[in-house]
Amino acid sequence: MEKQVVNEFTVEGRNAVIEAFRSGKPIDKIYILDGCQDGPVMTIKREAKKHDTLIKYVTKERLDQMSETGKHQGVIAYAAAYEYAQVEDILLNAKEKGEDPFIFLLDNIEDPHNLGAIIRTANLAGAHGVIIPKNRAVGLTATVARTSAGALNYTPVAKVTNLSQTIEELKKQGLWFVCADMGGETMYRLNLKGPIGLVIGNEGEGVSRLVKEKCDFTAAIPMKGDIDSLNASVAAGVLAYEIVRQRLS
Amino acid sequence: MEKQVVNEFTVEGRNAVIEAFRSGKPIDKIYILDGCQDGPVMTIKREAKKHDTLIKYVTKERLDQMSETGKHQGVIAYAAAYEYAQVEDILLNAKEKGEDPFIFLLDNIEDPHNLGAIIRTANLAGAHGVIIPKNRAVGLTATVARTSAGALNYTPVAKVTNLSQTIEELKKQGLWFVCADMGGETMYRLNLKGPIGLVIGNEGEGVSRLVKEKCDFTAAIPMKGDIDSLNASVAAGVLAYEIVRQRLS
Repeated sequence: MEKQVVNEFTVEGRNAVIEAFRSGKPIDKIYILDGCQDGPVMTIKREAKKHDTLIKYVTKERLDQMSETGKHQGVIAYAAAYEYAQVEDILLNAKEKGEDPFIFLLDNIEDPHNLGAIIRTANLAGAHGVIIPKNRAVGLTATVARTSAGALNYTPVAKVTNLSQTIEELKKQGLWFVCADMGGETMYRLNLKGPIGLVIGNEGEGVSRLVKEKCDFTAAIPMKGDIDSLNASVAAGVLAYEIVRQRLS
Repeated sequence: MEKQVVNEFTVEGRNAVIEAFRSGKPIDKIYILDGCQDGPVMTIKREAKKHDTLIKYVTKERLDQMSETGKHQGVIAYAAAYEYAQVEDILLNAKEKGEDPFIFLLDNIEDPHNLGAIIRTANLAGAHGVIIPKNRAVGLTATVARTSAGALNYTPVAKVTNLSQTIEELKKQGLWFVCADMGGETMYRLNLKGPIGLVIGNEGEGVSRLVKEKCDFTAAIPMKGDIDSLNASVAAGVLAYEIVRQRLS
């Protein structure tokens, strides 16, 4: 399951960014000068919407700081560093290994360091792949590739339009879904064996309501402390390894 | 166990940095223009050594980028954002709660995001404190405070000169020590109950030989994947929660 590693690249300037969209380059994220409303910028926003690209509105100082060419004209785009897999590739990966599918589903992870660390964990916990949604969430950027510590070369990552729908389809393939949420049953008391999808929520908001409703179980990590929640990649690791423990026992 | 939260601050310019050292401000890290060898800079290096401050040599471009005043004169220092606790405070914290001590010991974590995430995990896993070494490792900077998600206000962090020696002293108080290492026994097979110190190694090099020799157990997280190791904060989370599981059962 080797994949081609491509370096991240940035595209700066209005025409260059429009051109990149039209040539079909996978643009992950686009930084636009806040308040900018002229024709080319409106075209870029339209293209971004069409391609499910994340738009962030930032100050001129921020853009100047990010710019490598010094000629950003109010727009800097980040292109995907890696190729995405299909959900079928992930199921095939499990089948080839003769194992029950074990898949991570990330409901809008926004921090590339978290995404990279989670892909790294998925690889080492023996998961067969990671599914991320197209909207809002961060994609496979160079930062993600770097923080995955090489795992992106082995663990397939698929990008889907609608996570709830993907869960429905995977249920037909026999998978059970467990999502991480403080309101759930303590994870040690759940049976997490068999073909399983582990759903990890957004850093601030957790798992969205629509996705949570599709899950068969809600697992809680026991919390003894004074603050609200673990870092998303740590929570993913703790839950993944509870699944590993139950699979090994 | 409330602590005073202080914002991070930077000190720029030769005299200001020398003054900061002499007034006893806790300086965590200092950026010096590479190749700079004049009198004041040599004085700063001497002070940094005396105070166990991390020195990084960087280019003029880097310093210009980091500078808030535009007048760094080749030197920018970062001061600690938080007050450190004493090892005794951590033991007292356990005693006040009527619990067996559970302490994290970090053998040279260098990434502030990892340190912050680990302190966050320590808080939620019910650990009584975190011990970090003075040399090389990152200290309690604003980034650490932010990524700890508030945990730094509750979980005491002590800084010690010699981690091996601290382990020796804590053994006399009845603690057992387990360190994370791939060569160890699978963590599920170890008895991790009772008063325990969990030792997490450096991001690249793991736990140092001298520290490892002081540990009673070496615990391995089972690894099924293609790459080498988990992110340090994820590994800390997975091991900490194995301790939590055993304590709960």
